[in-house]
Amino acid sequence: MSQTETSNSYPTSARNQVKRRHDRGFYDHDTVHRILDSSMLCHVSYVIDGQPYCTPTFFWREGTKLYWHGSSASRMLRNQARGERVCLTVAHLDSLVLARCGFNHSADYRAVMAFGTAYLVTDPSEKERAVIAMVDRFFPDRTASLRASNTQEIKATSFIAMEIEEASAKIRAKGVADDDEDYALPIYAERIPVRTVLGAPEPCPRLLDGVTRPVTLNGYSEGRLLEDALRDAYFVEYPNG
Amino acid sequence: MSQTETSNSYPTSARNQVKRRHDRGFYDHDTVHRILDSSMLCHVSYVIDGQPYCTPTFFWREGTKLYWHGSSASRMLRNQARGERVCLTVAHLDSLVLARCGFNHSADYRAVMAFGTAYLVTDPSEKERAVIAMVDRFFPDRTASLRASNTQEIKATSFIAMEIEEASAKIRAKGVADDDEDYALPIYAERIPVRTVLGAPEPCPRLLDGVTRPVTLNGYSEGRLLEDALRDAYFVEYPNG
Repeated sequence: MSQTETSNSYPTSARNQVKRRHDRGFYDHDTVHRILDSSMLCHVSYVIDGQPYCTPTFFWREGTKLYWHGSSASRMLRNQARGERVCLTVAHLDSLVLARCGFNHSADYRAVMAFGTAYLVTDPSEKERAVIAMVDRFFPDRTASLRASNTQEIKATSFIAMEIEEASAKIRAKGVADDDEDYALPIYAERIPVRTVLGAPEPCPRLLDGVTRPVTLNGYSEGRLLEDALRDAYFVEYPNG
Repeated sequence: MSQTETSNSYPTSARNQVKRRHDRGFYDHDTVHRILDSSMLCHVSYVIDGQPYCTPTFFWREGTKLYWHGSSASRMLRNQARGERVCLTVAHLDSLVLARCGFNHSADYRAVMAFGTAYLVTDPSEKERAVIAMVDRFFPDRTASLRASNTQEIKATSFIAMEIEEASAKIRAKGVADDDEDYALPIYAERIPVRTVLGAPEPCPRLLDGVTRPVTLNGYSEGRLLEDALRDAYFVEYPNG
């Protein structure tokens, strides 16, 4: 199946259809993108000589494309530059669920698996955009205030991109869900929320006198959910989603 | 290379050797296991017909073996039951690092990639142990207080296990690290800590009167780091590591 410009869902196939617990599966752009944009960390799977690798890395989305980066020397990028099939996955753990039997112990979570063919970004203007976006997508307008990247640095940074061909989101958000008859048992059950939060920013000890935190970083404040800060920053950089 | 019973490091090969930033690579059991035992969530990569998949799932360690579970019907397990190569990865994000140039923007993290051949747990006594460990490894002694698993539930639960053949840990923990000359620039730089913490436990609204939270859950208290709770629980269940 191919995706049209006007569709607002990712096509489904044997690859991305959520088979188990299909009531937990979503394919619409809004749901898939929201989960992706709430994270900086993804895991990318790729294959070399039949051996699967699962590499954690940082990524961002632009429309229905995903970008990630690393050194030109890295094994993952050397491999993916040839145009390899990859699966890029993001998972948020939202709670631990303690039920009245072992079988119903679970967790609340939000996850996306995105499939596509990775390519090395070689087009100079696409690479120039990526050099900026890898910072500004997370920290709006920051690049303008930085020491400019030099030729060596740009050369040493490779970006891999992938058009999302298929994607699925899987969400569990119901806390304790026991078998009907088990609620009559005198067994303790609970949901323990899990949150990934920001600590107090630690300014570099070597800041020059008078250099203060720019207001553009206000979204990254102590105690805030990382995912909220990341998603807000996304919409500053990509106001059209 | 094969691993001997007495070694306390995982062997290295082309597969698991940390190539880029090799100063960040560790292979000793203590470092690798500590990162694994601090997490409940992993990402497992596997290959079907040349297509890589990256599935987030829950796992635990027993010695140099890793276990994960799911429905007997799941694609991942159907595939891995045949004895497939997999890579199981755990990553902790510890901070966002804002440097004085784009190139030095980074993050502090701890990650492990573990390689091996997955097999379906079919031995009845190994499966019986896994049914208990999948709960008690996280919530010590909890199984004894639960409604016992019935035959259908045990049948519907498959466990996949893998002896860790090779593994590597990669750690960055240095915050802002700029080029020497860049420290003279009037640019703001900081490290923003990231922590995954527990919220206040939410008891099931349908608890019977008089059913209270067991003291064995005291480690899961509001505000605590998830990884500390998980690691403490690990050592209750596996005191010898």
